[in-house]
Amino acid sequence: MEDRFEISLLLDYYGSLLTEKQQDIMTMYYNDDLSLAEISEINNTSRQAIHDLLKRCYKQLLAYEEKLKLLEKGNIKKEKRNKLINDLKVKYELQIEIIDYIDNVLEDIING
Amino acid sequence: MEDRFEISLLLDYYGSLLTEKQQDIMTMYYNDDLSLAEISEINNTSRQAIHDLLKRCYKQLLAYEEKLKLLEKGNIKKEKRNKLINDLKVKYELQIEIIDYIDNVLEDIING
Repeated sequence: MEDRFEISLLLDYYGSLLTEKQQDIMTMYYNDDLSLAEISEINNTSRQAIHDLLKRCYKQLLAYEEKLKLLEKGNIKKEKRNKLINDLKVKYELQIEIIDYIDNVLEDIING
Repeated sequence: MEDRFEISLLLDYYGSLLTEKQQDIMTMYYNDDLSLAEISEINNTSRQAIHDLLKRCYKQLLAYEEKLKLLEKGNIKKEKRNKLINDLKVKYELQIEIIDYIDNVLEDIING
């Protein structure tokens, strides 16, 4: 399968667009690290059925990212945050207390 | 029809999930303020067909918002930005130049 970490992130962004069953199975595989055999047993179905579902859902997540680009934009936002925080430290030499406050709000805004 | 401004915002967030034709017609109606009669003439179809398409697309946009809540989260982010900027002015009394810089990055991050 593809990059598990990337799929886990896509699942964070777009998981709510899958059905509940699809979300559960994707979460078991990509977040909870269950094997195909374990998941197929829990769901009382074949390994092949689980494998196909995972592949289909992955394609759906990629299609959403292709259109909405939330993951790609999220990465750009993190870079902007890092540059700003660095400037506030190095260039503007703000107090660490203020920088921490700003950084916490930025983290909230980016992840919210 | 419903609140045009809200639909225009939903279109910003989720328009890319509609087909190109749907996006065009939604944009004509909600952003460019064309009438049903004008849009139906341009698309060589009936006013009723355009009306139905607009209604169907609006429901789709609402369904995406129901699941992803990008508009709702966007509004919360704007409130957090306003509170932070106000604190930097009133409580921490930072230089206006630094506040403007921070505010521009925040705007970028929220709208990006």
